Amino acid sequence: MAEIIEPRTLRGFRDSLPQTEILKEEIQQRLAGIFRLHGFVPIDTPALEYAEILLGKGGGETDKQVYRFLDHGQRDVALRFDLTVPFARFMAAHVNELVLPFKRYHMAKVWRGENTQRGRYREFIQIDFDIVGVDAASADFETVVVMQEAMRALGVQAFCIHLSHRELFNQFLTGIGLGEAYGELLRTIDKLKKLGEEKIEAMLAPLAGAERARKILDFVRPGGSNQETLDRMAEAVPRGSAALARLREIQRCVEETGLERHVHLDPSITRGLDYYTGVVFETFLDELPGIGSVCSGGRYNNLASLYTREELPGVGSSIGLDRLLSALEDLKLLPGARAAPDVLVLCLEESLLGSYHRIAGRLRQAGLAAEVYPLPRKLAIQLKYAERRGIPLALFHGEAERASGLCNLRSLASRETFDGLTVQAAADTALRLLRS
Amino acid sequence: MAEIIEPRTLRGFRDSLPQTEILKEEIQQRLAGIFRLHGFVPIDTPALEYAEILLGKGGGETDKQVYRFLDHGQRDVALRFDLTVPFARFMAAHVNELVLPFKRYHMAKVWRGENTQRGRYREFIQIDFDIVGVDAASADFETVVVMQEAMRALGVQAFCIHLSHRELFNQFLTGIGLGEAYGELLRTIDKLKKLGEEKIEAMLAPLAGAERARKILDFVRPGGSNQETLDRMAEAVPRGSAALARLREIQRCVEETGLERHVHLDPSITRGLDYYTGVVFETFLDELPGIGSVCSGGRYNNLASLYTREELPGVGSSIGLDRLLSALEDLKLLPGARAAPDVLVLCLEESLLGSYHRIAGRLRQAGLAAEVYPLPRKLAIQLKYAERRGIPLALFHGEAERASGLCNLRSLASRETFDGLTVQAAADTALRLLRS
Repeated sequence: MAEIIEPRTLRGFRDSLPQTEILKEEIQQRLAGIFRLHGFVPIDTPALEYAEILLGKGGGETDKQVYRFLDHGQRDVALRFDLTVPFARFMAAHVNELVLPFKRYHMAKVWRGENTQRGRYREFIQIDFDIVGVDAASADFETVVVMQEAMRALGVQAFCIHLSHRELFNQFLTGIGLGEAYGELLRTIDKLKKLGEEKIEAMLAPLAGAERARKILDFVRPGGSNQETLDRMAEAVPRGSAALARLREIQRCVEETGLERHVHLDPSITRGLDYYTGVVFETFLDELPGIGSVCSGGRYNNLASLYTREELPGVGSSIGLDRLLSALEDLKLLPGARAAPDVLVLCLEESLLGSYHRIAGRLRQAGLAAEVYPLPRKLAIQLKYAERRGIPLALFHGEAERASGLCNLRSLASRETFDGLTVQAAADTALRLLRS
Repeated sequence: MAEIIEPRTLRGFRDSLPQTEILKEEIQQRLAGIFRLHGFVPIDTPALEYAEILLGKGGGETDKQVYRFLDHGQRDVALRFDLTVPFARFMAAHVNELVLPFKRYHMAKVWRGENTQRGRYREFIQIDFDIVGVDAASADFETVVVMQEAMRALGVQAFCIHLSHRELFNQFLTGIGLGEAYGELLRTIDKLKKLGEEKIEAMLAPLAGAERARKILDFVRPGGSNQETLDRMAEAVPRGSAALARLREIQRCVEETGLERHVHLDPSITRGLDYYTGVVFETFLDELPGIGSVCSGGRYNNLASLYTREELPGVGSSIGLDRLLSALEDLKLLPGARAAPDVLVLCLEESLLGSYHRIAGRLRQAGLAAEVYPLPRKLAIQLKYAERRGIPLALFHGEAERASGLCNLRSLASRETFDGLTVQAAADTALRLLRS
């Protein structure tokens, strides 16, 4: 006998079993519905691109997280590690075919060879949406609205979108005698929620000096209403700050659309990434603060400067489907996903196979998911199959019913049976039972 | 200024622009709907797997079509080139968690480094569905039913599923003194529709001898009703042939469910792949015979023998989304895909931004896709944007309407305007205009 190959997957990669896959499809469909209602349209890009495109000219020293290799034609290629870089390349390539502002969403797999010890996966689905080609409060605010509606569409009511402005933070730093916020400073403040004030102050002191570290902490400390935070910000930045005016305008929209409950101005939101230049936001679930943000993003001045001289300002946000799925699981908010059809048409007589398929077809026309048990096995085996799969209803049509064409329907949970039904009556009864 | 990187994609890889991506999503949703109605459930598997898994132990001499490389951990890995091999590995890994028969569908990208000169792509979406764990006429027939419903769900009425049986063909070959059908013979007959009888006879002669070549051609020559073909087959195979009995049973189901128009017994269908052992089928579009089969598959004895000693017979079929999409395009059967929202809320006064977003939110609640133009630009610019994007309706709400809260709705095609509407009335009017 040939040797068996162990059916293993790579570490950090997972199969998606039906129960999970149905939920993923459901979540993606609901989010796509929200995006489409807002005028966003879907795109896709290749999973594999030139490494130069994904990593930039400076990508010579391979980022260890990126799956990069030489293809058959000795081309230096890589798997995409996010959806932002391919989108930038996409915009540069197609800007002349598109109407600006362009609103797109993209739900797709990305790959990162991350350390799997922290429970990270190497293949996961990201859901990004962006508005490109305009720098306006309306677009910033719409991103917030979409994030908010996305949460609601998934049944999440207790959440808060924390909002700040990168340029405003830079103005504050300049005001206390520091240069523009640089990566290390941003990433330190980014850890405030996780590590607490004391530790962050100790980390900031060598970067900014002890006094300035305290000033920074005073500035980013959360608390107060959005209006109070705006007033505090106003004292820390120059008069006529466009960044402050932008936040005020967004806050006005928040009030006029009744979103105060879900939007919180929070100067501690800095986002680690360097490319943000305007508003930045993160979304926290009230009941699961520990998992961090489930939907984050911000405004950038120039999406595609690596690939085109055309300036493409934009704003967008990104949802990690896997983290969101596990959060919804923890919150018991997952939509009911039955990985089974509604009705099992039992196979009582092999010679009636054609009739079984005709009956199943009629049930489907009535909107019921129906399958035919494929072999005339013992009834107990067929009913056991229905039970194990979670099929709620069984339809009986045997030798006795051959002449009449009638059938019997049984609810497998209640054991209730409905005898002598036409197929149409069986369909109606099934629909009624499933609704109740 | 930094040097610009040309925003190119790899040869054989394509961006999917919104118009195309919307259609792909629509087609996949319709097909998923059919699969779910039949009790099939979705799964997913990693894009990247151990090369040993995808290529088998004998995969040492790399198949040139497979994207294969060493990852960071020096593991020999590859991108999946179809959905069948990963499904086999999946079944071996999870058979104990699943209820048999297991019916799955899988819609996902696969990668092949094919020669792009013949218009082939190196990244494409496959749509597979299979019933595993049972060898029964009912499962064979259900595959045919699903293929048929899939075509109808996409608006295709003029199509035919050509059906044959690999084992029956082997029996015929044995009868004329040849061994079991081997790859080259199968692949030669597979080309009959494309190359015609004369060429195939010339190719078969050196493989089987001149006389047998003629006998083979007589056997596989299409023509006649399904019953006539069954009778012709009966003469060519031993009495009591289970393969013939299976085809007869399927034909009975075809008749009893009224599918004669769409199912044609055709002994020339052999399928090139070695692993088929039972029924095999291909689907042709009446009006586009030249593009070949848009949905093909068959029965295999043992899906996962490389990875498990458990026997897993199955039957399934595969749809190439890209070929199907281009066929639907040629047939002008594509569903209307408007890559634009229904209503553009014009931005007439910057100070009314909150109101615009509130109005857009109300329109969305009524089921309308609505977006707010993000800046108070000249009206002509905003209307030009609506026109270029194909947004059919524009909503006006300016200084004059601030106090009343009313708005005006304009159909951009007919120039018809509806003035002084409440937002609710505007939503109702918009829905009515879109329906008409």
